Amino acid sequence: MANITKKVSWSSRADESGATGEGTPLLNGSEQPRHSRQLSEGRSIFQIGRLSTVDLEEEITSDEDSLRGRPKEIPHNEKLLSLKYESLDYDNIENQLFLEEERRMSHMGFRCLEISRWVVCGLIGFLTGLIACFIDIVVEELAGIKYQVVKENIEKFTEVGGLSISLILWAVFNSAFVMVGAIIVAYFEPIAAGSGIPQIKCYLNGVKIPRVVRLKTLLVKVGGVICSVVGGLAVGKEGPMIHSGAVVAAGVSQGRSTSLKRDFKIFEYFRRDTEKRDFVSAGAAAGVSAAFGAPVGGVLFSLEEGASFWNQMLTWRIFFASMISTFTLNFFLSIYHNKPGDLSNPGLINFGRFETESVAYNLYEIPLFIAMGAIGGLLGALFNVLNYWLTIFRIRYVHRPCLQVMEAMLVAAVTATVSFTMIYFSNDCQPLGPEHTEEYPLQLFCADGEYNSMATAFFNTPERSVRSLFHNQPGTYNPLTLGLFTLTYFFLACWTYGLAVSAGVFIPSLLIGAAWGRLFGILLASITTTGSTWAVPGKYALMGAAAQLGGIVRMTLSLTVIMVEATGNISYGLPIMLVLMTSKIVGDYFVEGLYDIHIKLQSVPFLHWEAPATSHWLTAREVMSSPVTCLNRIEKVGTIVDILSNTSTNHNGFPVVVQVAGNDEPAKLCGLILRSQLIVLLKHKVFVELARSRLTHRKLQLKDFRDAYPRFPPIQSIHVSQDERECMMDLMEFMNATPYTVPQETSLPRVFKLFRALGLRHLVVVDDENRVVGLVTRKDLARYHLGKHGLEELQLAQT
Amino acid sequence: MANITKKVSWSSRADESGATGEGTPLLNGSEQPRHSRQLSEGRSIFQIGRLSTVDLEEEITSDEDSLRGRPKEIPHNEKLLSLKYESLDYDNIENQLFLEEERRMSHMGFRCLEISRWVVCGLIGFLTGLIACFIDIVVEELAGIKYQVVKENIEKFTEVGGLSISLILWAVFNSAFVMVGAIIVAYFEPIAAGSGIPQIKCYLNGVKIPRVVRLKTLLVKVGGVICSVVGGLAVGKEGPMIHSGAVVAAGVSQGRSTSLKRDFKIFEYFRRDTEKRDFVSAGAAAGVSAAFGAPVGGVLFSLEEGASFWNQMLTWRIFFASMISTFTLNFFLSIYHNKPGDLSNPGLINFGRFETESVAYNLYEIPLFIAMGAIGGLLGALFNVLNYWLTIFRIRYVHRPCLQVMEAMLVAAVTATVSFTMIYFSNDCQPLGPEHTEEYPLQLFCADGEYNSMATAFFNTPERSVRSLFHNQPGTYNPLTLGLFTLTYFFLACWTYGLAVSAGVFIPSLLIGAAWGRLFGILLASITTTGSTWAVPGKYALMGAAAQLGGIVRMTLSLTVIMVEATGNISYGLPIMLVLMTSKIVGDYFVEGLYDIHIKLQSVPFLHWEAPATSHWLTAREVMSSPVTCLNRIEKVGTIVDILSNTSTNHNGFPVVVQVAGNDEPAKLCGLILRSQLIVLLKHKVFVELARSRLTHRKLQLKDFRDAYPRFPPIQSIHVSQDERECMMDLMEFMNATPYTVPQETSLPRVFKLFRALGLRHLVVVDDENRVVGLVTRKDLARYHLGKHGLEELQLAQT
Repeated sequence: MANITKKVSWSSRADESGATGEGTPLLNGSEQPRHSRQLSEGRSIFQIGRLSTVDLEEEITSDEDSLRGRPKEIPHNEKLLSLKYESLDYDNIENQLFLEEERRMSHMGFRCLEISRWVVCGLIGFLTGLIACFIDIVVEELAGIKYQVVKENIEKFTEVGGLSISLILWAVFNSAFVMVGAIIVAYFEPIAAGSGIPQIKCYLNGVKIPRVVRLKTLLVKVGGVICSVVGGLAVGKEGPMIHSGAVVAAGVSQGRSTSLKRDFKIFEYFRRDTEKRDFVSAGAAAGVSAAFGAPVGGVLFSLEEGASFWNQMLTWRIFFASMISTFTLNFFLSIYHNKPGDLSNPGLINFGRFETESVAYNLYEIPLFIAMGAIGGLLGALFNVLNYWLTIFRIRYVHRPCLQVMEAMLVAAVTATVSFTMIYFSNDCQPLGPEHTEEYPLQLFCADGEYNSMATAFFNTPERSVRSLFHNQPGTYNPLTLGLFTLTYFFLACWTYGLAVSAGVFIPSLLIGAAWGRLFGILLASITTTGSTWAVPGKYALMGAAAQLGGIVRMTLSLTVIMVEATGNISYGLPIMLVLMTSKIVGDYFVEGLYDIHIKLQSVPFLHWEAPATSHWLTAREVMSSPVTCLNRIEKVGTIVDILSNTSTNHNGFPVVVQVAGNDEPAKLCGLILRSQLIVLLKHKVFVELARSRLTHRKLQLKDFRDAYPRFPPIQSIHVSQDERECMMDLMEFMNATPYTVPQETSLPRVFKLFRALGLRHLVVVDDENRVVGLVTRKDLARYHLGKHGLEELQLAQT
Repeated sequence: MANITKKVSWSSRADESGATGEGTPLLNGSEQPRHSRQLSEGRSIFQIGRLSTVDLEEEITSDEDSLRGRPKEIPHNEKLLSLKYESLDYDNIENQLFLEEERRMSHMGFRCLEISRWVVCGLIGFLTGLIACFIDIVVEELAGIKYQVVKENIEKFTEVGGLSISLILWAVFNSAFVMVGAIIVAYFEPIAAGSGIPQIKCYLNGVKIPRVVRLKTLLVKVGGVICSVVGGLAVGKEGPMIHSGAVVAAGVSQGRSTSLKRDFKIFEYFRRDTEKRDFVSAGAAAGVSAAFGAPVGGVLFSLEEGASFWNQMLTWRIFFASMISTFTLNFFLSIYHNKPGDLSNPGLINFGRFETESVAYNLYEIPLFIAMGAIGGLLGALFNVLNYWLTIFRIRYVHRPCLQVMEAMLVAAVTATVSFTMIYFSNDCQPLGPEHTEEYPLQLFCADGEYNSMATAFFNTPERSVRSLFHNQPGTYNPLTLGLFTLTYFFLACWTYGLAVSAGVFIPSLLIGAAWGRLFGILLASITTTGSTWAVPGKYALMGAAAQLGGIVRMTLSLTVIMVEATGNISYGLPIMLVLMTSKIVGDYFVEGLYDIHIKLQSVPFLHWEAPATSHWLTAREVMSSPVTCLNRIEKVGTIVDILSNTSTNHNGFPVVVQVAGNDEPAKLCGLILRSQLIVLLKHKVFVELARSRLTHRKLQLKDFRDAYPRFPPIQSIHVSQDERECMMDLMEFMNATPYTVPQETSLPRVFKLFRALGLRHLVVVDDENRVVGLVTRKDLARYHLGKHGLEELQLAQT
């Protein structure tokens, strides 16, 4: 019964942990390592992940890509956990240096820190709002020019014939914009592709995604999103705002830019993962707030995706950043729109005001809303499955930048062509009322004073299309138009998500949902006699939008609040909530949410909220990595360099043990030290020459560690001479002397709770004599997940 | 330098911990106990708390009260921590029984549990909504009758003279209602006094407040709040809703009522502190939601006050309960108001709709709002200081129920008299417009077609008064009326809070703030020439209300959201936030928030979010209680009974240690067991007779512990014969085998973080050989707080 599970390779799985690979020195005298997992009787871990030969080849061939620094090495097996991701340290490293600094600091010092945190959050909000404003204005202007030119062209050629020239003009316009957007993403910063929400989720969860919060990423993101929206793709500019806010936060809070090589010598206290994470939460919230005009939704988004420990002051600051962000956006947009002081445009997308009086709902409509939620869940699952296949296809065959750019241009051209065809063949003409809100009404073959209703959906920025679907009078769209639009836009959006362009999936999802929701409302009104009084199509469009978006992204609490804030009407709270719940339940039955799919496809060791429910029979003994590479409190430099240089293990944390002098007893745990700390120590040559018993180094400050943060040099770049290898290093001052520990018998849920609640990176497992027997890291915990057949264990792979 | 702090009495301070008092057996062979605290050099803990002889006498004389079960023994020194409060266990007790049950449970079983959690939350929301609805309707009806009778009486006597008869009628009406309310509170359930928010805060924080979530408390609360509102006191019915929701939650989630002696045999899994706390959070949120029509605000309130570990699914369920609650209230109220389906009354208090168009604000108004925030902070601090003095006076002199009832009646009579006088001498007559919203306009000495404007504020339920201050046309009130009203209502409300009646402070605060805010707006409009266009008094009334409420209760995030949701207008978010921030900062400079003052006056060991900033120089060694009463894994029954019976220590948690057989080495920690568990074991006689080596008991189930939860019998009620005293008890199966531990050198903030994030009750401090050296409990951590002169240490006292 035992030993039915084996790890892929013990030498290759211990990236984050200090578990030894072959040849690394064992902790002398410790217990025998337990390579195998004892499974309790009657249970077995269901194994799916296999690393087939084909997969391995695939990875080898993609090695050249990874060397060029682009994340093309995504394995196309989501039952793997990649070892390449490091974790972030969301637990303070309480070593002597840190404690001394904290103890030196006066009450007033802490108060100043608190004030500077508020200042940073204010700045984050302000800058995020400005960026949102910039994106909005540029998109408005460029899209205005594009649609104006194409409209004039179409109008010219409608009469004389030869509309194919208009089509070509439109397609060329789109492709050109998209080409620029795709080139900067594919060639300069591939991490800027997509909405960035999965990456920020991972970051807040504690996974270090390389280059995700750099200035270059921000620039590419902003440029890319402008190009892809103006290029007419089925995308939104809202998702990327979250990523942009996060980058702004990471930059502002550090008081320096490594890319620009400028250090303003401020906020040095914040140069560690814990503080930076807090600010990034605020930045993400500010991004949501600017995107949807939903400051509370932004706070909840940050909490839902990131925070494990709820801290009142932190949340309050996050809220402040969100408020400032939406206010800044609103203020500058009001100036741009020549209505200074009009604070009614709090976000990039504005759903328009839903008045309670006109669109109240009745109790008997609630089952209808729930049915819409189910439809949304189904369609969302379909969307996700299609996109999943597409992504696997892309990973296999479209991993060269030039191919990616070409695919993006192709999508742009096809989008233009399909839109044009739909408009061309549509004969849904609507009278051009005095209160019409269409920016670019296309007359085409309609009578004078009428416009093509299909064009309001296709020949428009997606934000405007959503608003017109919500608010246009009943009868503005005929059912056929809506049905066709839903169908085509669904496939276009699905194809578009995952292209090498910066773009979000929120707005396309809302648009698809609003279209079929409105269709649902119209059909409902037609089959009921009293329909006209309650089946207002706009209301159903809103519910459809919520259902579709919920079905795709599967966010719950924050999405409800975002939708409520965006509609500005609290009384829709309950139905929106029910719709989102239903769509999540239905969708989850088939497949995970879109972001989770992409996170899984990247093999990120993502920690969920709780350990799988049925994992109580696993204990720390079974999940931990062992044996562990331990260091002595006073260790030879040569040994440390060797351990750090061992590429087959690449450990990041090492328990420090102390041997009682002249005693046979095994060594006791006395601390924990990180690779990054050792690197700084080696760089500054903090060695003790035992022979002459003198210190050859100056006293190291916390500042030295902060200066090196976050880009610690690799061990290869540090030269240690043969003489120096014989020196000793005293780790006493630098190690975390009080790491959290658990006994071997601790159940997995308990280990998980401790690990997740405190944002740990390494958790030492000790026996009842306080000797190190193992180390639990993120990957050891993320490996277990609840599959269809009970508890499954993911494979770890060096992808 | 060492030993400058001494504890009051070592034998009396260890309630929660297992620290030994005199005479309890020490852990054999453990380290020497550290009675004294070694303070690091150059620092000293500032000591303020003194237990003067007067205080001690006070306590002794009040002993007779405490025996009668009423919490009259409040010490009037807020620099004390009471030992009488036990803690709740928000960490699962993972003993073998629990793990076996969890392991037996299938995936489907967990899913069913999850579904039943949702059902419970739905029920909580529904019942809370119903209770709110009941209170609202009864208050409306009774107040309607009262005001109608008094109005007719006044109208009759206005012409013929002899208005003093009307005054007497009014005062008698009020006093009668208040008498009923005060009698049920003072004689039947004193814990139901006040708003209940401090009690719920403490409960969610992990402090066990006796009788706080019982059915009787709920009944008294509901009856009491109706009486005090109808009795015309300066109180609101909103605060008590939070308490009511919490009681509903605690009751429904347990599937039984101990008071009614009914056990429905459902939800047995939820019979432990962790699960119950989660539901109580949902109940409190549902209460806020019903009170203010603010479901998101409710969720944030629960999180702000309670949750330490953010859990996505839990929050989502809390939100569900909140939504159902506001929906239920709204639905039934719409039927009561003969407008079924009109969902525009989501809460007990309805601020009325603020339209963006009519009351937009400008950038230059923001400094004005901030100034209002400062005023609110000042007035709030004044309110709190006055109420603090009053509370101390009450503790000393008004602790008999009959005195309490008389005081309440006096306040009711005075309120009526003052109101009447104000109305009588006011000559602010306003025309009775066609759109007037006053329910009971008093003409009094005004001309026909006019009404007394002072009466709209005083001769009305406070909720209506708030609404008319927000929304009445400019010019409805003259400044003198508002000034006098603010002044009198301020003192009335301050006098009223803390009476032995169920009542909240939210509405009076809003009312005071709205009055001076409107006054502020009117003065502003009069000194600016362009005043009429922007200085809308209603807007300033809103800001004033926010400022005053913030200055009194000092809530931040949740209050902002509650205000925004209650106004139904998101664009006020930023100003409300700034106002609340300012009022909090200004108010905190002088005195704490009202709830915190009352919590402190009760000497509750309340844990804040983080350890005091300047506490890094304290370590677990200094804060822990030691030496610790430990039990052996197989312990003599007699020893256990003796330890449990020791009234001088009254410990609740005991580390379990194991001695390696035939070895001199000291015992190692192997588990932790609670008093409540030992009681159940003793009750079921789970003894092993070593002589005959057989088990004399049936196998104990988790069910036995759940049946005894939460009212475990005292040790005195369990009879153990002399023979049985010689038996042994095997604790192996019942102890938590993997308690969290920290080394002695761990800094206080680190200990605090672990303790708070995981909701612990006992944290074992071990040395580097895993031997028990101390125990950290809530009181050890709550003792340290940041005072004006740096870190202060509170005294522990057996109050």
